[in-house]
Amino acid sequence: MKIDLNCDLGESFGNYKIGNDQSVIPLITSANIACGFHAGDENVMAETVKLAKQNHVGVGAHPGFPDLQGFGRRNLDMSLKEIFNMVVYQVGALKAFCDIQGVKLNHVKPHGALYQMASRDAEIAKAIASAIYEIDPKLYLMGLSNSILIDEGRKQGLNVASEVFADRRYENDGQLVSRKKEGAVIEDSHEAIEQVLQMVKEGTVKTISGEMIDIKADTICVHGDGAHALEFVKQIRSHLSEENVDIRTLGG
Amino acid sequence: MKIDLNCDLGESFGNYKIGNDQSVIPLITSANIACGFHAGDENVMAETVKLAKQNHVGVGAHPGFPDLQGFGRRNLDMSLKEIFNMVVYQVGALKAFCDIQGVKLNHVKPHGALYQMASRDAEIAKAIASAIYEIDPKLYLMGLSNSILIDEGRKQGLNVASEVFADRRYENDGQLVSRKKEGAVIEDSHEAIEQVLQMVKEGTVKTISGEMIDIKADTICVHGDGAHALEFVKQIRSHLSEENVDIRTLGG
Amino acid sequence: MKIDLNCDLGESFGNYKIGNDQSVIPLITSANIACGFHAGDENVMAETVKLAKQNHVGVGAHPGFPDLQGFGRRNLDMSLKEIFNMVVYQVGALKAFCDIQGVKLNHVKPHGALYQMASRDAEIAKAIASAIYEIDPKLYLMGLSNSILIDEGRKQGLNVASEVFADRRYENDGQLVSRKKEGAVIEDSHEAIEQVLQMVKEGTVKTISGEMIDIKADTICVHGDGAHALEFVKQIRSHLSEENVDIRTLGG
Amino acid sequence: MKIDLNCDLGESFGNYKIGNDQSVIPLITSANIACGFHAGDENVMAETVKLAKQNHVGVGAHPGFPDLQGFGRRNLDMSLKEIFNMVVYQVGALKAFCDIQGVKLNHVKPHGALYQMASRDAEIAKAIASAIYEIDPKLYLMGLSNSILIDEGRKQGLNVASEVFADRRYENDGQLVSRKKEGAVIEDSHEAIEQVLQMVKEGTVKTISGEMIDIKADTICVHGDGAHALEFVKQIRSHLSEENVDIRTLGG
Repeated sequence: MKIDLNCDLGESFGNYKIGNDQSVIPLITSANIACGFHAGDENVMAETVKLAKQNHVGVGAHPGFPDLQGFGRRNLDMSLKEIFNMVVYQVGALKAFCDIQGVKLNHVKPHGALYQMASRDAEIAKAIASAIYEIDPKLYLMGLSNSILIDEGRKQGLNVASEVFADRRYENDGQLVSRKKEGAVIEDSHEAIEQVLQMVKEGTVKTISGEMIDIKADTICVHGDGAHALEFVKQIRSHLSEENVDIRTLGG
Repeated sequence: MKIDLNCDLGESFGNYKIGNDQSVIPLITSANIACGFHAGDENVMAETVKLAKQNHVGVGAHPGFPDLQGFGRRNLDMSLKEIFNMVVYQVGALKAFCDIQGVKLNHVKPHGALYQMASRDAEIAKAIASAIYEIDPKLYLMGLSNSILIDEGRKQGLNVASEVFADRRYENDGQLVSRKKEGAVIEDSHEAIEQVLQMVKEGTVKTISGEMIDIKADTICVHGDGAHALEFVKQIRSHLSEENVDIRTLGG
Repeated sequence: MKIDLNCDLGESFGNYKIGNDQSVIPLITSANIACGFHAGDENVMAETVKLAKQNHVGVGAHPGFPDLQGFGRRNLDMSLKEIFNMVVYQVGALKAFCDIQGVKLNHVKPHGALYQMASRDAEIAKAIASAIYEIDPKLYLMGLSNSILIDEGRKQGLNVASEVFADRRYENDGQLVSRKKEGAVIEDSHEAIEQVLQMVKEGTVKTISGEMIDIKADTICVHGDGAHALEFVKQIRSHLSEENVDIRTLGG
Repeated sequence: MKIDLNCDLGESFGNYKIGNDQSVIPLITSANIACGFHAGDENVMAETVKLAKQNHVGVGAHPGFPDLQGFGRRNLDMSLKEIFNMVVYQVGALKAFCDIQGVKLNHVKPHGALYQMASRDAEIAKAIASAIYEIDPKLYLMGLSNSILIDEGRKQGLNVASEVFADRRYENDGQLVSRKKEGAVIEDSHEAIEQVLQMVKEGTVKTISGEMIDIKADTICVHGDGAHALEFVKQIRSHLSEENVDIRTLGG
């Protein structure tokens, strides 16, 4: 049994610092690196690829909407062609930093609103998946477990990595409970860790209404901002190790 | 004897159209494609790479300062590291569009103020040349003939392409006469064509003060905006052909 | 009887030129000037305010989404507070150019996707209307005739200007027929002018299904890009004059 | 005797937070608020004007180069007309937020590279001063004491506020010692406070070479980022109060 731990990194921009990349990177196995549209810039990208390389962490591109002010979290009504090209551009830019540092680009994970929209809209999912495939058919597409994005990635012929969330509850259809609904977030860290272990070991999760459903868990999304978040990642790692789950990069 | 004809293409942005790419592309052998910082965007880049491919024109990246409003023509005081990373990012993004269309990226030509600054400043020239070299040591670096940029490109181990201008006069040291000085531009098209032919065939140019100096001419910069510009490119082509100069892509 | 003719102006950006402002401005009575988010920039704004002043044309701010690449035509999911502040910022910036040139800012017309969204969404309409009201309660809010934006502007206490389109067909509920539906655009210019005259003189319009409905026409949207568009504006002016309709600025 | 304490505020952007505005604002008398070009955005501007109002702090616009990535600290070669219009735009946008909150816009201080360039270049200084004057001739122009910017502001007919720095050493000609030279920064806080008191009370400063020169001190630049910076502001306040120097807003 194995699992990947992924985290969004390289989200600083110019003089603006976000996150705690140095602290979290030793704890994860995949870094989703912002590509300059919703966050990050070319200097941050160069530094973050270097940091990932030093820590033997898998490098992924994290393309998002061209909306720095909204941090890529606001839905933007782009055409499918625009989405395709936007993904090619961002992944290509990050890939250049990987290439010159001798690092393999391992995966792509859409960011924020693009990720959410691609989870539900097959056309958008397909535009993203085909862009990734054309750049390199061996790239992993990281997407929400049970989502349309994963389906489309698989149809496209990509390796897919189903992402699960430790602290979010699921609906009976396998979707995340909307943050607008009560109970969407698991506040208790023990409960969150229980959920993670069950998803990873059993491939199941108990939904918000109490039903048991199947869920594929290839990678867990973790966060590195703040002492609490770091502590939680350490706990997840420790529990996974106790259960003999191998924590390793996608495809590693 | 051979010569390349290069032109800046793909400078449109979103709803904004610049240039006459469709008309000029059959007349040139190298396209310098804007990469989204001073001009161009991902959709324009995709279209322009496609257009270049259809017309069997060599594709080059045309990186510039992050200054869309100033069209990359305003000096910006970036650090050498910032310049290096900016070139990697832009060339990488364009290369992705080349890769997915099965087109070889052939050259890189810095744009506007970056080109001018790199012609005179060895540190900036070196930052650009090393970025290009690390991406692909076989790329051509296109720069002003007799300039520091060409020197640094050669030192770096790159193939260099010395660029000359049909309608600009030269100083005795091989630099372009500043546009602020009288006589900087050759108004008479016959005289301009004479200058081109002499540069290409003899490797010399008569300077503004009447001296004859050596000049290397690997590629001629032409423009495609407007009927007059197109007509001039046709005249250059016709005269070069008459003189049995082979018009072909760098390295072709 | 009177009517205003409005046109989007000042949409150029840096080196990028859009429109034919010099040619259309003598034909209109209100200029909607882009404010630097979806189009325009501070230099274009200064020039366009000057041009409007010279031509005694009413000046309006034309705020839009912060999306230059999409020309403000792509829906962006901003919060109401963000929309409010975005309108204040853009209108305030344009007002400064009016103030220093001794020109009165007369109206505000939301642009593109913002205009469309505000026509249907009361909360967005209210955010826009309240921003305008707080800047200056005597400003005209220009919006789609029969739309929620006009309702909310009126509720807010603003002067409102109901905008009609010469060449677009209407649904029975007074909304524009979507461009995705057949028959959305009136191709025949005589028919378009007939529709305009009827809207202005009778306050009615025949809908796409043949019904006659009421419509308020305070201002007609015209375009200045291209010889055909200019010719059409001239025809509208000529027919309106023949019918003794006074063509004048809002509130003039 | 009186003095103003000014601090750069409102430099956050979207999801990116910079500074500690809440903590420093009770300690200062003038806030220089970023206007969305080098830092800040419309939402941050609205919040910062509100914060300044609540704390009875004078509000100033802090216009800078359109270079968010470089935080306005990189020289950009703009034309004088572009600088003029850029200042009008930014000051106008901030003024709108002041107007709707019933707050007086009190001063303008150019930011970063623009401030530095205007301190040495009379043409740039004049472009800035005339933009401010045309918006409102009663605005204070805040600039480096003894600089060309102050001269040009005075020539223009503006109220000027000469700014001094507690922890920077001065050359014999009244200019700041370049940060590239040793001894540019006063590391010892007692010495810095001594310098401040002398500048405010005596109107003199001992230069890096030991000479005593005249210096006008209308306002002191302070910083709010970090516990150390805040502590230093408190010390300055306390020493000024002991010496019966009135700490108050420009013109207050």
